[in-house]
Amino acid sequence: MIIVMKPSATKEQIAMVENKLMELGFKTHPIYGEVKTVIGAIGDKRNLNTHYITTLPGVEALVPIMKPYKLTSRELKQDPTIVEVGDVKLGGEEIVVIAGPCAIENKDSFIKTAISVKNAGAKILRGGAYKPRTSPYSFQGLAADGLKIMAEARNVTGLKIVTEVVDTRDVEIVAETVDIIQIGARNMQNFRLLQEAGLSGKPVLLKRGLSATIEEWLMAAEYIMNEGNHNIILCERGIRTFETATRNTLDISSIPIIKELSHLPVIADPSHASGTWKYVPALSRGAIAAGADGLIIEVHPDPNSALCDGEQSLKPSTFAALMEELKPIAAAVKRML
Amino acid sequence: MIIVMKPSATKEQIAMVENKLMELGFKTHPIYGEVKTVIGAIGDKRNLNTHYITTLPGVEALVPIMKPYKLTSRELKQDPTIVEVGDVKLGGEEIVVIAGPCAIENKDSFIKTAISVKNAGAKILRGGAYKPRTSPYSFQGLAADGLKIMAEARNVTGLKIVTEVVDTRDVEIVAETVDIIQIGARNMQNFRLLQEAGLSGKPVLLKRGLSATIEEWLMAAEYIMNEGNHNIILCERGIRTFETATRNTLDISSIPIIKELSHLPVIADPSHASGTWKYVPALSRGAIAAGADGLIIEVHPDPNSALCDGEQSLKPSTFAALMEELKPIAAAVKRML
Amino acid sequence: MIIVMKPSATKEQIAMVENKLMELGFKTHPIYGEVKTVIGAIGDKRNLNTHYITTLPGVEALVPIMKPYKLTSRELKQDPTIVEVGDVKLGGEEIVVIAGPCAIENKDSFIKTAISVKNAGAKILRGGAYKPRTSPYSFQGLAADGLKIMAEARNVTGLKIVTEVVDTRDVEIVAETVDIIQIGARNMQNFRLLQEAGLSGKPVLLKRGLSATIEEWLMAAEYIMNEGNHNIILCERGIRTFETATRNTLDISSIPIIKELSHLPVIADPSHASGTWKYVPALSRGAIAAGADGLIIEVHPDPNSALCDGEQSLKPSTFAALMEELKPIAAAVKRML
Amino acid sequence: MIIVMKPSATKEQIAMVENKLMELGFKTHPIYGEVKTVIGAIGDKRNLNTHYITTLPGVEALVPIMKPYKLTSRELKQDPTIVEVGDVKLGGEEIVVIAGPCAIENKDSFIKTAISVKNAGAKILRGGAYKPRTSPYSFQGLAADGLKIMAEARNVTGLKIVTEVVDTRDVEIVAETVDIIQIGARNMQNFRLLQEAGLSGKPVLLKRGLSATIEEWLMAAEYIMNEGNHNIILCERGIRTFETATRNTLDISSIPIIKELSHLPVIADPSHASGTWKYVPALSRGAIAAGADGLIIEVHPDPNSALCDGEQSLKPSTFAALMEELKPIAAAVKRML
Repeated sequence: MIIVMKPSATKEQIAMVENKLMELGFKTHPIYGEVKTVIGAIGDKRNLNTHYITTLPGVEALVPIMKPYKLTSRELKQDPTIVEVGDVKLGGEEIVVIAGPCAIENKDSFIKTAISVKNAGAKILRGGAYKPRTSPYSFQGLAADGLKIMAEARNVTGLKIVTEVVDTRDVEIVAETVDIIQIGARNMQNFRLLQEAGLSGKPVLLKRGLSATIEEWLMAAEYIMNEGNHNIILCERGIRTFETATRNTLDISSIPIIKELSHLPVIADPSHASGTWKYVPALSRGAIAAGADGLIIEVHPDPNSALCDGEQSLKPSTFAALMEELKPIAAAVKRML
Repeated sequence: MIIVMKPSATKEQIAMVENKLMELGFKTHPIYGEVKTVIGAIGDKRNLNTHYITTLPGVEALVPIMKPYKLTSRELKQDPTIVEVGDVKLGGEEIVVIAGPCAIENKDSFIKTAISVKNAGAKILRGGAYKPRTSPYSFQGLAADGLKIMAEARNVTGLKIVTEVVDTRDVEIVAETVDIIQIGARNMQNFRLLQEAGLSGKPVLLKRGLSATIEEWLMAAEYIMNEGNHNIILCERGIRTFETATRNTLDISSIPIIKELSHLPVIADPSHASGTWKYVPALSRGAIAAGADGLIIEVHPDPNSALCDGEQSLKPSTFAALMEELKPIAAAVKRML
Repeated sequence: MIIVMKPSATKEQIAMVENKLMELGFKTHPIYGEVKTVIGAIGDKRNLNTHYITTLPGVEALVPIMKPYKLTSRELKQDPTIVEVGDVKLGGEEIVVIAGPCAIENKDSFIKTAISVKNAGAKILRGGAYKPRTSPYSFQGLAADGLKIMAEARNVTGLKIVTEVVDTRDVEIVAETVDIIQIGARNMQNFRLLQEAGLSGKPVLLKRGLSATIEEWLMAAEYIMNEGNHNIILCERGIRTFETATRNTLDISSIPIIKELSHLPVIADPSHASGTWKYVPALSRGAIAAGADGLIIEVHPDPNSALCDGEQSLKPSTFAALMEELKPIAAAVKRML
Repeated sequence: MIIVMKPSATKEQIAMVENKLMELGFKTHPIYGEVKTVIGAIGDKRNLNTHYITTLPGVEALVPIMKPYKLTSRELKQDPTIVEVGDVKLGGEEIVVIAGPCAIENKDSFIKTAISVKNAGAKILRGGAYKPRTSPYSFQGLAADGLKIMAEARNVTGLKIVTEVVDTRDVEIVAETVDIIQIGARNMQNFRLLQEAGLSGKPVLLKRGLSATIEEWLMAAEYIMNEGNHNIILCERGIRTFETATRNTLDISSIPIIKELSHLPVIADPSHASGTWKYVPALSRGAIAAGADGLIIEVHPDPNSALCDGEQSLKPSTFAALMEELKPIAAAVKRML
């Protein structure tokens, strides 16, 4: 790290900062500029309280040189991580599409949707059993009953299944049933939930928080990896900005950035990003062309009567048509779908 | 609510929307404009899936007329709520200041801080036992041991105590010990935690989420109130914007807006909003002048050696000086401190 | 428009609002709900000061039903506008790529770049003669001398040329020389400049402002069209958000939204959006796949020595390789490049 | 500045960066860490194209150590600047309030307002002669006729006058008439307009741009000062965020930050920040308590019939009452009003 001293810092203050750094085990290298002095400090900063330094007299700023995440970093592991969910591989040559309704409403409807998305080419089935809803008056999900319906849909279709968990107390039961545990955007910094997901041993689909920087998102993945679970799929699902024409703003740049900074696979969620089914095809095509390893798309047999997020759900027929549109895009970026 | 039809909507589509609304128990009032038709619909929209309507053919948009929150609304309860924590009253004539360190580090230091903030005029003591930290490598709090230290500080000083809870599994033990349960910004939409806090029977200090709108913040309070707990203190702690000169941007306008929309008391957290102790006095003065019912301020006996958020902590002497500065401001807005 | 009355509005207040609306030439249709009354008002709102209504006693809100823009709207003109710049057509089947350096630095370098981007398949040459720079100490452009170099590059290559204008006093000289006038992001709400560009008779490339909503962007285009100039090319170039990993956040959703709301062509600027050349290929592919009508890309023969924005410039060889990558993407969305 | 090399940078690459820096006149100080090497470079970076360095092979990042602004910086000039407009002093002990309507509509109404705001204690009169309006169909101002009305109001009341200029071609005529030239938020990065305002010799009221960082705002002031004009009054008027409950979000933290970074006076505009007259008193009190040197407030004799921004205008009587409320706040921060 680099410590920048104020223009008004005295020699004594500079010496004190150097001494403190040496006491903490850092090697120091001061550079005396015309206006300001900066001190290079070599050592492991991870256990340091950086404000101990920044609040010393005469210090203007501390500039970190190393990234705060380690395990998720491509500096540590240069080969891309391929998350294997049975025979489905995320992060490899194949583009993997996850599809299904926002919430599991009843068995018949869910299995019908499962069959249709499988026929269209989806490899993983999504469905919400525990729903985080903005209003306490909205449908909150079928909970354990929903998990049973998911398992049955897996038996019928052979699709892998993923569902969101919103409470540390539910991680165990969810992990017993599903193939992938989803951490939603609102819980991206629910650190206890991240730890439990890490301990569950199941692959984790980690959505980016509404206002999370890419660095914070990777730090959330670091929490999971720190528990020994390295099977993480990152999911860009739109960030909150001033623009209200879409529910959120899909940050498509995050796809090449994640590919540069991390070895983890990254997919996109055009349904939650836009909040409107009619923009889902354009965003899906854009995300694949920009390098995403997959997509998670809401599909509902009858969006008009969905209990949750019907506005952003595709009909099965529209989803099937989109899957056809995506094939030449995947081929253009030398991937398969 | 108002349903806006597209310019291209046919008579049949308009009739179908009217019929569906009537089936759902709404009374309808169409208005035929030169370009667009709008349909007024009178009835209870709370259990309606609005996308059922918005996805009908010919519908352009649905405009809600009623606010989505009820219990927190000043439309429902015009008198301000005064949250009583023993003999401390939040939301009344008195400005209540909560102070203490980010994290509880050890008994001696914590009790020393407690005594100093009490002497300066604080009424409630804050301290973190369970810390939500961005990095898994940072200090995570003393947990149950921290709660014991808090209780001892209360015994010594007579101050009320507040601490943050980050996991549904901890609500019971926290509620047994503290006077106020805090829900932090990162958990503002951890709906299960909100429900558990609601069921705990303890007053809840509900911080605004980093990217939460005022409406979403009130909906989070609605979750708590929906469990029968009406003792909620809202806390503005800064929102995430493009500006990086402060850690977050204190949205001071939220104070008069909350006062207009809701009957709940609202306080400000200048320490987390700015992330830098040197801006805390200006923001504290500003918040009180704008109508806040109180403040929550980080104070640490030795910020340089704090295990958490030292940069934003005031020294006890600076805190005491600030309390003096705030008195004439409080008097200027006809409040007491 | 719809006027929403407060729950506390009296009959007299409702009657007064109706009377005022009728005086202003609106037909009124009140709807009496259980809690609130709303009044539908039919008429031309464009010349109305809406706050005249919103500040009447008892009024809670005014909800516009019609969009504020007319000329740019697809409601008015359903066929897409194809902007013809000589034989280059923007908005048709062909994807048009604009390329060139941020600033024109000298004749030799500029003409060399022009030849290389033409050979790679670009149809229009960009180059800055008047540069809006954040710092007064940065290179401000060659002004009229830059325009002469551009004209010469056009003679040599046959490429069309586009440059930014930043001052109403320069519109005339710029319009005499170039084929397309560019209005930059910082001037998107410089309304006088928009009017002058409208009067110039030249096609206008209108960049989206850093913090402009899509509606404000279309209103800026409306200013130009209101002067009788209908040849406008919209350009998404990234918006300002909290994320700092890229200079701006490319709002890829704006592409399908503009296609829905307006008949005007829309292109993307991946260079300014990301601020880093290495993300330009991914964003270029994503924008074309999402439906953009073209791209504007910074290319510099020697980015290391560029006087402006070298970090975001591609080398000619990288640009040529990108053009090859884009061809199958264009084909996948049934366009040509 | 500090150049951070990639972990993979070779010795040759490090040597090349050092050589290039030395060629450019910098003294270099490499520091070899365990993972990364950083190079300290001492010299004047203002005329350097930093991307020349950042794009050299092996370079990861460049960290500036010096601030990009000079003339506006408190590092250069420690005493606060007091802008004198005749006998009115901005930036001194006195809190200066500027008041008046958004737009000048006619002589009688304007002079009536001028008299009322003077009686309430305002020292400077605002009024728009050239209005930047989002819609081309809105009232655009009386232009030169408006200036004449302003001058007459000054004669009648003795108030100083300030108006916004939106076109370089109007700076001369505006500077001849008014006491202070205003640069609006939408033109904060209209650099030519900044230069003309700098050359005009008149004090300049520089509003912060909707999405301008504090650093960019100071750089805009630097443009004006670079033309030799040091009489600048900064004005915080709200930034664009995701929150829609107010038109913009008043960034009250910017007040103490400007006081720390710059010697220039700073005032607040609660009318444009909130967009709603009812929040103006709370924000006015908050801004003064936080350390603002003054306020600019919209006042209109009949907001209901205002041709522009009536929603955010106070009635003269409300303004007069607010001025009384502000006096004890000013006294509490040891200022006068």
